[in-house]
This record gives sequence, structure tokens and C-alpha cells, in this order.
Amino acid sequence: MDTHYDLDSVIRKVPDFPKPGVLFYDITGILAVPDAFRYCIDRLEEMCKDRSIDAIAGIEARGFIFAAPLAERLGVPLALVRKLGKLPGKAYEKSFELEYGCDTVCVHEVDVVAGTNVLLVDDLIATGGTLKAAASLFEEHGANVVGFLGVIGLPFLDYAQVLEGYPVDVLLEYNGE
Amino acid sequence: MDTHYDLDSVIRKVPDFPKPGVLFYDITGILAVPDAFRYCIDRLEEMCKDRSIDAIAGIEARGFIFAAPLAERLGVPLALVRKLGKLPGKAYEKSFELEYGCDTVCVHEVDVVAGTNVLLVDDLIATGGTLKAAASLFEEHGANVVGFLGVIGLPFLDYAQVLEGYPVDVLLEYNGE
Repeated sequence: MDTHYDLDSVIRKVPDFPKPGVLFYDITGILAVPDAFRYCIDRLEEMCKDRSIDAIAGIEARGFIFAAPLAERLGVPLALVRKLGKLPGKAYEKSFELEYGCDTVCVHEVDVVAGTNVLLVDDLIATGGTLKAAASLFEEHGANVVGFLGVIGLPFLDYAQVLEGYPVDVLLEYNGE
Repeated sequence: MDTHYDLDSVIRKVPDFPKPGVLFYDITGILAVPDAFRYCIDRLEEMCKDRSIDAIAGIEARGFIFAAPLAERLGVPLALVRKLGKLPGKAYEKSFELEYGCDTVCVHEVDVVAGTNVLLVDDLIATGGTLKAAASLFEEHGANVVGFLGVIGLPFLDYAQVLEGYPVDVLLEYNGE
């Protein structure tokens, strides 16, 4: 794939979402343009080439949109990382701190296989807090997290520091306003 | 595709979820088996052949997992149908009644294009209530809903009645216990 797609041209920028002062980078604009969406999946697939990846973990809910086609293309299992109460089976849970309060991510125990290499996929990587917590769900039970993949990265929110020691790859970075 | 995959063998059955007395049919077991997941996407793609489909709408959140690879394969836009407060842009909203209380589904206004043929995709079709409300989000603004596609159908919950007049296709039906 040598063709380039200008993803920035289709990403919707929504001011004051989810709260005043935040500019939200919305990937639904990518989904509205089939060539842009296919380009993302092609590029994500490319980024997985020559890497030892046994499974993909997708982060609820927008992460599923990119993780699912990627897992299907790679032919590896897809594990879902979800909010508390959403997974029906027995699940590992990990709470983590947010700016105000805290949140919890979960994964089905049966989907964490010791010794396997797991790549975590989300639509947008901001502070890295959710991904870091999601990674520990796997690592605390013997799986290896081999990196993080996102469509959009917001490096000015310092995810590189939170996710230090792991490869983090994104298709497009925004550097704040 | 003539090969058949025994989806029932990988679908996880979880008793008493989300509440006592309900047997939950969980598609995460499909995602754990790459051949099963690929089979689903192949079959869903087949079901779209020779139909006039301009866009796919995926229902939050498990619906995204099947709707996204399907839209990518078909090369058509993917619209997200989400719960209230999840979409950052200007959105149409539709409330509908549940057994107790009510719920609301939303879609970005910009993703509803008058005159286009939209296929709605979810993982599981039970009462059909969410899909019916999602359909009205499109139809009330000039788009045509050409049918519903699911991985699992629970016909004993009478979705056929609620979704009367539309083609409804699923890969696998369960008929209660």
C-alpha cells in the first residue's frame, strides 16, 4: 500500500465534547468514507506485519470498530475489553483513576491466555490510562502485551509516559491547539 | 463459500445474565475462534450480495464488531447507532419502551442521507425493539431501511412481529429452552 489517505480531512473535530474546553477528535468521519476506513485497516494490518501477535484486544466501544476488522484480517482471536457489568462471563477487573473519580475495565478470564502475545487496539490514545489498565488485565495473568495501536494519538496528553516501555503506534497525531 | 461452521459450538451460553432467568447468548466465543469469526463475516457479506445497500448502520456496542468488517468489505459507509450522550456531533434521538423504563438510541444527523438504502446490523436480535427504534432514526429523515441482519436470532421473543414488513436475516436461531 503506497497510496496515502489524508485522514485529517475526514476526522470530525467537535469542540466542547465531552466537556467544555475539550476538542474531541471523532473517528465517525472516517467511517462515513469507505476509502478512508479501508485505508485505516490496511495501515493497521501493515503495522502488524512481521510482529508476533497471537491475539488482538479491542477497547470498548469505538476500539471494536478497528480491532474487529484487524483481527479478522490477521486471523487471530479478538478479546473485548469492556466496562464493568457488560461482559456476561467470569471476568478479570481493573480499576484505574481518572481526573475525577475512577473507572473499571474488564476482560473475560477465558480470553486471557498465558504466554500469548496480545496487541491492544483503540480508536484514540490520549492519556493512556485506559490502555495501561487494560494491559494489566492481561499481564497480571501471564499474557504478554506487545504494544498499543491507535488510529489517532494525542501525544500532548502524555500517553508516551504512561505507556513507557511499550511500542505505541498511531496513524495520525494531533498536537493540541 | 460452501464451508459450514458450527457456530453453536462456540457461542457461550451464560445463565442469569443480565438478570435471573435469562439465558444470554454471548458472541465473544465466536471472536475467540478466528475461523468462526471469519465465517460470520463471509456469510453476512454473502447475504448482502445482489442487494442494493448504500450504507450499514451498526448498533452499539457488539453490533459494531460485525458491522465494521462488513461495511469495510462492502465498501459502504458505516453509521453508528449509539446510546444517548455517546455521539459527539449533532444527533437524531429516538426513545423507545423497554420492559421497565425506556431507552434512547441516537445517530449523527450527517450520517443519515435521504434516499439511501441502509441495512441495520446487530449481534443478536431478540425483541427487535432497539432495531425498530434505530430504523425510525433513518426513516423519519428520508433514508430507506432495507432490512436487518444479525448473527443470532431469538424468534421466540417475537422480533418478527415488531420488525414486520422488513427482511430480517440471522446466521443462527435459538428457540428458547
